[in-house]
Amino acid sequence: MTEKIIFDTDPGIDDAMALLFAHHARDIDLVGVTTVLGNGTIDRVTQNALYICERFGINAPVYQGAAAPLLVEADEPPAFVHGDDALGNIQPAVPSHSIGDQYAAGYMVDTILQNPNEITLVAVGRLTNLAMALRINPDIAGLVKQVVVMGGALGSNRFTGNVSPVAEANIHGDPHAADIVVTATWPVTLVGLDVTMQCVMDSERLAALRQAAGEAGEFIWDITRHYENFYRDTHGVDGFAVHDSCAVAYVMAPDLFSVQQGTTRVVTEGISRGQTILVPDDKKFPPSAWDNIPQQQGCIGVDADALLDLYQTTLTG
Amino acid sequence: MTEKIIFDTDPGIDDAMALLFAHHARDIDLVGVTTVLGNGTIDRVTQNALYICERFGINAPVYQGAAAPLLVEADEPPAFVHGDDALGNIQPAVPSHSIGDQYAAGYMVDTILQNPNEITLVAVGRLTNLAMALRINPDIAGLVKQVVVMGGALGSNRFTGNVSPVAEANIHGDPHAADIVVTATWPVTLVGLDVTMQCVMDSERLAALRQAAGEAGEFIWDITRHYENFYRDTHGVDGFAVHDSCAVAYVMAPDLFSVQQGTTRVVTEGISRGQTILVPDDKKFPPSAWDNIPQQQGCIGVDADALLDLYQTTLTG
Repeated sequence: MTEKIIFDTDPGIDDAMALLFAHHARDIDLVGVTTVLGNGTIDRVTQNALYICERFGINAPVYQGAAAPLLVEADEPPAFVHGDDALGNIQPAVPSHSIGDQYAAGYMVDTILQNPNEITLVAVGRLTNLAMALRINPDIAGLVKQVVVMGGALGSNRFTGNVSPVAEANIHGDPHAADIVVTATWPVTLVGLDVTMQCVMDSERLAALRQAAGEAGEFIWDITRHYENFYRDTHGVDGFAVHDSCAVAYVMAPDLFSVQQGTTRVVTEGISRGQTILVPDDKKFPPSAWDNIPQQQGCIGVDADALLDLYQTTLTG
Repeated sequence: MTEKIIFDTDPGIDDAMALLFAHHARDIDLVGVTTVLGNGTIDRVTQNALYICERFGINAPVYQGAAAPLLVEADEPPAFVHGDDALGNIQPAVPSHSIGDQYAAGYMVDTILQNPNEITLVAVGRLTNLAMALRINPDIAGLVKQVVVMGGALGSNRFTGNVSPVAEANIHGDPHAADIVVTATWPVTLVGLDVTMQCVMDSERLAALRQAAGEAGEFIWDITRHYENFYRDTHGVDGFAVHDSCAVAYVMAPDLFSVQQGTTRVVTEGISRGQTILVPDDKKFPPSAWDNIPQQQGCIGVDADALLDLYQTTLTG
């Protein structure tokens, strides 16, 4: 069965890889791409999304989203991770395509209303657009098929944060939006660092992809030169985590993941800002902030080899 | 070697058991008892401390401490756990002994200064007195032998909190004081719910203690009727955790515990108020609230049977 997805993204190196993954996936119908600040400014990531769509013949329209988080200050884009152009310093050409004629949140609302119970939102950046869409029309919560988020660090292996010991960047970057999204009455799956940090594309896999995946393989090779250095220097790892592709993989093959159900909140202030706390409902606690909100689910295990194989076969098949 | 301890407490059922444990321990010299709000009001817990000392011939003087946390509101005493008198509704007689002639924090400071590098602070309630002692004279941080705290939930098994999914009551009850204590330059060991919830005195052990430990055994039987019901109803457990005795056991026999080193902070506000976050230093993170503070340690494993045996032999030996 084909899954209709709106891909909300801030490309971003692993975003670009995930966008190509969704484009090539036989079972995914990429109906639209929406952008949000994050790995670059909103102008930068929107240009990058247009560039990738144009270069690889991706017909989905691109809608520009939020340039700033709901309440916190926008962080400086992490050029040390994604490069000055957020695509590993490849200096992409200025695209000739242009953006859609409304903003991302409005596009999400209209598309969901026009395709009731059919749209999967795959959000791999800050959740600002999704939170605004819920505020534009709360009814969409009951009309999406599911929401799959690359974000969070549930701590299933403890201290799995990246921007802080307990927080992951997408959630930390707009914690209020994230808390709105995970407490809404739509089904959310968090694909967080607990699993994405296990999905490391090493130099051998990358060489195979470069050889077999044509122009896309060459492009991925080019944009990941910078990223690979970051991982080697910071994490001592050969290769890099394919974070955002994990969210796409969840849509294609949820069986690759093990999940935990629980009510989920995001810490919005203080030293642990951006911590995503999913509380399973098999323990009793006094009344708390986790009561009377919908259950969501978070990924706590993944068959990483199978996921990386799926990426390879999808881009080359 | 004999350990000189000041026992900071809010008796409290498991506090009373821990006080008797410290009193009977051959290797512990109980130099003073200080009180702090918590399981009862400050008046209630101070009366209880005096009562226990008088009834069991404990010569240590009792000093009254804080009636309120540093910044947060005082919680209602948890009568559903510890009873209306905080001693399991035994209605203790009014003690004839009276409290020492200064307040707890001042007593701690003077005693530490008079016994440099010899005093172990064993704190099994809110950390208000310890934080105030550090503010009265910061030099004490370099002059205590160690600080052993019953408090915190490090999440080594996830969701080990009791007053919330992530927070333990002593830390939650005065999170600012706790953050002061765990970030001071004295050696702190957190004996938290990760280990204390494993140390459950079941009905068989309790019957043996009642039979063999004379008046203390009878007293412990009496005060734990209420507590046992609470554990049965809330946790579905036969018996009850000897939380505060675990901190005393750590002083007597640290080898019963496995520990993890790390810099530690306490969340002081928001939905996760009172969460104790110990971050091991073997992972790299961007600059965070865990930088440039002293390493402390937290207990993450315990030989529960050996600890419960130690309690029995100490009270009956």
